[in-house]
Amino acid sequence: MRGLVMKALYFALATSLAIADSTLDGSKCNLTVPSDAVYLTASATTDERVNDLLDYMCWSEKIAQLTGIGGLLGSNVTYNTTLYDQLSSIHQGSISPGSYLNYASDAVPVIKDVIEEFTNNSRLHIPYVNIADSVNGVTLLGTTFFPATISMSMSWNLDLFKQAVTAIRDEMVACGINWVLSPDLDPARDPRHGRVGETYGEDAFLNGEYGITYVETMQESDENSFMKIATTVKHFLYPTSVGGINSGSIDTGINNIFNVLAYPYIRVFRKTTPASLMPSYASIDRVPSHANKGLLQDILRDTLGFKGVILSDADGVSGIYNQHKIGQDVYDAGARALEAGVQSVLAIQFPTGFEEVINTPSLAPQVNEAVTNLLRLKFTLGLFDKSFPDQAQLNSTLRSDEHLAIAQNMSRESIVLLKNDGLLPLPSTTSNVAVIGPLGDKIIPGTYAAWTNADNHNKTFVDALKGWLGEDQVNFVPGVQVLSSENADIASAVTAATAAEIVILTLGAATVGWDDPLLSQKTDGEGATHGSLTFPGLQEDLLAQVLAVGKPTILVISGGQAFELSGTAQGASAIVHSFLAGEYTGQAVVDILRGLVNPSGKLTISFPNASPVNPIYYDLLPSDWSSTAMNWPQLTLPALYPFGFGLSYTNFSISSPSADQDEYSQDGTITVSFSIENTGAFAGKQVVQVYFGQSSGASIELPSKRLVGFTKVDLQPGEQRTASIAIPVIELGYFVNGQFTLDKTIYTLYVATSSASSDFVSALNVTLV
Amino acid sequence: MRGLVMKALYFALATSLAIADSTLDGSKCNLTVPSDAVYLTASATTDERVNDLLDYMCWSEKIAQLTGIGGLLGSNVTYNTTLYDQLSSIHQGSISPGSYLNYASDAVPVIKDVIEEFTNNSRLHIPYVNIADSVNGVTLLGTTFFPATISMSMSWNLDLFKQAVTAIRDEMVACGINWVLSPDLDPARDPRHGRVGETYGEDAFLNGEYGITYVETMQESDENSFMKIATTVKHFLYPTSVGGINSGSIDTGINNIFNVLAYPYIRVFRKTTPASLMPSYASIDRVPSHANKGLLQDILRDTLGFKGVILSDADGVSGIYNQHKIGQDVYDAGARALEAGVQSVLAIQFPTGFEEVINTPSLAPQVNEAVTNLLRLKFTLGLFDKSFPDQAQLNSTLRSDEHLAIAQNMSRESIVLLKNDGLLPLPSTTSNVAVIGPLGDKIIPGTYAAWTNADNHNKTFVDALKGWLGEDQVNFVPGVQVLSSENADIASAVTAATAAEIVILTLGAATVGWDDPLLSQKTDGEGATHGSLTFPGLQEDLLAQVLAVGKPTILVISGGQAFELSGTAQGASAIVHSFLAGEYTGQAVVDILRGLVNPSGKLTISFPNASPVNPIYYDLLPSDWSSTAMNWPQLTLPALYPFGFGLSYTNFSISSPSADQDEYSQDGTITVSFSIENTGAFAGKQVVQVYFGQSSGASIELPSKRLVGFTKVDLQPGEQRTASIAIPVIELGYFVNGQFTLDKTIYTLYVATSSASSDFVSALNVTLV
Repeated sequence: MRGLVMKALYFALATSLAIADSTLDGSKCNLTVPSDAVYLTASATTDERVNDLLDYMCWSEKIAQLTGIGGLLGSNVTYNTTLYDQLSSIHQGSISPGSYLNYASDAVPVIKDVIEEFTNNSRLHIPYVNIADSVNGVTLLGTTFFPATISMSMSWNLDLFKQAVTAIRDEMVACGINWVLSPDLDPARDPRHGRVGETYGEDAFLNGEYGITYVETMQESDENSFMKIATTVKHFLYPTSVGGINSGSIDTGINNIFNVLAYPYIRVFRKTTPASLMPSYASIDRVPSHANKGLLQDILRDTLGFKGVILSDADGVSGIYNQHKIGQDVYDAGARALEAGVQSVLAIQFPTGFEEVINTPSLAPQVNEAVTNLLRLKFTLGLFDKSFPDQAQLNSTLRSDEHLAIAQNMSRESIVLLKNDGLLPLPSTTSNVAVIGPLGDKIIPGTYAAWTNADNHNKTFVDALKGWLGEDQVNFVPGVQVLSSENADIASAVTAATAAEIVILTLGAATVGWDDPLLSQKTDGEGATHGSLTFPGLQEDLLAQVLAVGKPTILVISGGQAFELSGTAQGASAIVHSFLAGEYTGQAVVDILRGLVNPSGKLTISFPNASPVNPIYYDLLPSDWSSTAMNWPQLTLPALYPFGFGLSYTNFSISSPSADQDEYSQDGTITVSFSIENTGAFAGKQVVQVYFGQSSGASIELPSKRLVGFTKVDLQPGEQRTASIAIPVIELGYFVNGQFTLDKTIYTLYVATSSASSDFVSALNVTLV
Repeated sequence: MRGLVMKALYFALATSLAIADSTLDGSKCNLTVPSDAVYLTASATTDERVNDLLDYMCWSEKIAQLTGIGGLLGSNVTYNTTLYDQLSSIHQGSISPGSYLNYASDAVPVIKDVIEEFTNNSRLHIPYVNIADSVNGVTLLGTTFFPATISMSMSWNLDLFKQAVTAIRDEMVACGINWVLSPDLDPARDPRHGRVGETYGEDAFLNGEYGITYVETMQESDENSFMKIATTVKHFLYPTSVGGINSGSIDTGINNIFNVLAYPYIRVFRKTTPASLMPSYASIDRVPSHANKGLLQDILRDTLGFKGVILSDADGVSGIYNQHKIGQDVYDAGARALEAGVQSVLAIQFPTGFEEVINTPSLAPQVNEAVTNLLRLKFTLGLFDKSFPDQAQLNSTLRSDEHLAIAQNMSRESIVLLKNDGLLPLPSTTSNVAVIGPLGDKIIPGTYAAWTNADNHNKTFVDALKGWLGEDQVNFVPGVQVLSSENADIASAVTAATAAEIVILTLGAATVGWDDPLLSQKTDGEGATHGSLTFPGLQEDLLAQVLAVGKPTILVISGGQAFELSGTAQGASAIVHSFLAGEYTGQAVVDILRGLVNPSGKLTISFPNASPVNPIYYDLLPSDWSSTAMNWPQLTLPALYPFGFGLSYTNFSISSPSADQDEYSQDGTITVSFSIENTGAFAGKQVVQVYFGQSSGASIELPSKRLVGFTKVDLQPGEQRTASIAIPVIELGYFVNGQFTLDKTIYTLYVATSSASSDFVSALNVTLV
């Protein structure tokens, strides 16, 4: 049964909107397309095919390409056919699958039918491009549920990350998805913001590294030279918004844009060519990104040379009026967006703002450019030439053993050990454990995860712990809910702790999506803002009272954010943060607690000492650090747990590094070499990081330390190895009013195990001549 | 005795610096100046005199004019004559009095001697200009100690403010001061920042109103048409710095600059002509204000047309290198500052950065322009023509009855009643009062106050309360210190509360200067940053435990900042915030508590619900408010006590307003009229505010409400009066990329008693055609 799932507004407006062609190209609407038209001929070049197709298109068809069918399927793989028919007559560019609670095996065939039927029956036979989000993998059930982006970033393992992206890509391809709304390159610099979990963390350089790997891997060519999956770098520019508020405005200027906010994009553009880019919901210096010609044209197109499709975020165009209150109405917003450079609308609500462009022939140049860009991408993706993947490919690809193993490895490498007084790893003789807290039996998935507790592969922490110690050795008492104070029973939790030998507190935030049972308890994730970094609800009370019992206690945290851990939480003997580690979260945490896996994740976001310390990031400017003496509360500025920090069960000794030369030219590469030894008793991996600062000559204020390279080294106990990190000299530069600048001066390179100066192992100077 | 007071660095470098004239104008150094030189002739025009004087000056003398003698006197009216002689040979532009702990009657004659001796003995007889700070009045003891700027702003009484500025000006003139480092026009938008107490609050429009009054009043002409006191608008631009950190960097762009940060300056420049302007310590988008040609030349000179002297802040020039780490050394910093537009250095430490300019003849154009500007100001101030004020003028002016009365009125009108459950005003039968908390016997002065407990006019709150109720009815128990936990005795405080009928808690922050006995407990004021807005030290514990006693309790707050009052503090029946209310603080609070004075102050800074809510201000942009549903803690975004809010002991009824026309042109003035009635039993004053928003057509994101006018109405019980507020249409405009913009659309004007929409009494629409 195909039920009603779309919003009432969508329906009412769709029926009332008059679809009239303008005089522009009007006569073409009736042209017959021969079956041997150049654009339908695979042997023609993409340019030839695009130009040929454009010649057949009339004005209304061009505008129809710029919008699409957003979120086709509701739950139970249903959709409103009447509404679909109405919309598909004017929204013909893209389609997206809809509800994340559908199983791929059910949803993909329906989507396939809709796409093929539309392609076959429309005059020009232009296929939809199938667009989907991805933070943890495919947004359909029955796929491999990977750790979310923030967790993957904590691995600092680009090889493993490439494996994960490859697996996600192949599952997407099998699902008939063509275009992914990732990677999210935004440096996460405000810990209050709910979307930190969708990012790669706070650092512009590191986000660029992950972004390059992501785009290269997703956009690999298939055997027919078609791009496998088109990527979308986003959200240009985000998220250091006022107050950490989701969708809040951003006050910033060109130097911060080029050196921080846009720097991951600049790094990605140097190495690869993402198919598309999405502006942010934010207004930048009071101009919404979606209406920001200075941003999209002057900076993005003219200075950074981006040539791909500029795709709106959902409601990003109408939001120019609805959210930012600019202009006269949503159609005025649509015109402003097109003029600023937005070329395609991610359609979720109707109207999108682009519909009335049909009455504005003066926008024909922008429309033609947009259609050309989009059609070129459709040809590049092979949409006119290849058929929709079949069921066999779906079955053999989704949740393959290889993909599951990658997901498990990523979970294990993404979890960060923040504190360990020696309690960990737990011995095999461990018994009588009380698991206390609301998250013992829940996996926190993140906002964009396809996930349901009903899936039997979602083994929780308590399940996994029982699997190790036996059912009778684990007493799980939630004590409180995540946020709600209903049915709280801290007394029972205290009783359980008193009776136990070891206590494991499972606390955190409900970083969940719109369909999650925990939605009402959400304080993190898109749409949420958490002014306080303490644990929500009664969890702080639970923490304090359980710690007061005095048993050896391990704090296991979930949620895509930093928490305030400087106070009560320090009463725990060990602290492990699992962030959003995917379907293997529970098992991976247990594997780490018992020492089967040696933790090797390192933070990619800084944990402040206190909630009011925001924004927070390791690369503050010198003047930001200039007056810490009279800060109160004291010592709030240096992070409690800084970017790059994470503990291991073993110890590493790193020798003084050397560089391959003393002097370098601008186009050179500095190779920093050092020897590293595992001096402890456990096999383990260490993320060795290189930061740098320049001695003098800067013409704008620069951070005293910036990450410029890293490597993750895997060593057996007692093993020693030489490692090296290559640093292109260009990475030492910065931007002044958008102009790249590289000073001929002395640079100090710090080999380090975190961004804290106290974790800088050694330093060496090189000179740029 | 003249002792050693200057810093060692100052001395060491001064002795080693070679003072050699360059070839530029070198021969002029030996010219003899005739006593009838044009520049010494009062009847010549200022331009004639400046040009004539320049003709006599050699290169080294010009550069010497650009710096000065900072902080001449240490405590006990002493100074280092050797050092003074060395410095005065190269630093000849300005002088400043030094320690705030000297009495004017002692210090002024010494300063007079130094200035007159220098003028008489130097070749060109160019007098120093005497520069001083002012936040509460003259920075010497024995003067009237007014409320600090933030407190004066809370009065919303421009007439009273003009009286206060007039009194301060006349005391300055009597002290021989020529140039004041005020007004501070910066919108205070981060509650963590320590310098909020030096500002007029968060709103750009209101700060402009106070700034206009300040500059007009200070710069009034005397009977000889000389400017009485030159003003310095500052700090261009400040203080929405990263993390609320003092001296922290500012990320911002041109639209936020023109519409918020610089908007008070723009308003001041429209109405008056401040003699000078001071750049901020901050870097704006990574370029320090003192080296920021885009800011000082493109925006300030070229776009805003500012013609006055650009005067550095103390160490602001050397800070380009020392703080911001830009360039090669402090002399490079000096050259960068001069090139960017800084014309005069406020000399506190040596070297200032300008000394080596003597070896950089290429900077001659900038030096000549700077000297010309400074000399013009010296002539405008009459320094070449009038003599130093005499002792009689000093005696008759300082602390005159009129000035003291103004200070008292300002204290009374600046104090804000934030909460009153009906406990206030206290009846005349009040007895057995426990005053608990560290500030019962302390006046919190602010960072730049000349103040000592030793002065008998500093009557504390406890003194004043005893004066009303009698010595035996007041039991003062501090309980805790402001910040230090030493000698805390909360138990005694609880005992005192238990024994009392009424409890008054006197809490707050030590907003103090560098010489204050409370310096070690400082968490607010210049140099301090308070990440948390809770009461420092053990005060929150004291508050909770004393409130738990359950007696009727009044919370009396001191300190130049907002506090977090949403939690424990709400247990108090009444909350009064005195901010930094000057020497009458204690008496004025008592006068309010007993109902002798009806409180009429209104907040000029917003009080957030929780410390992590920052920045905070009422005129957030629409998108900043767009997602409050999943904020946690809940309800943190709307302020607990918003800008414009303050309670009274009486009630006011305001009629629906009317405008004098329906349509206006761009050069028109909207007169909004309404009738207001005091419907309560107390005489009282109400600050009626007008906010506005435009209906559509905005080309950048604009706040939905902006203050555009206000009036303070004084009414007897039952009295009704018609009031009107004139709003120049130009005030409805905004700036897009620096261009003034005014949309022809419908504007809604809200008559209100605070900035909270719930306090918007009524609205009316007008149309701009």
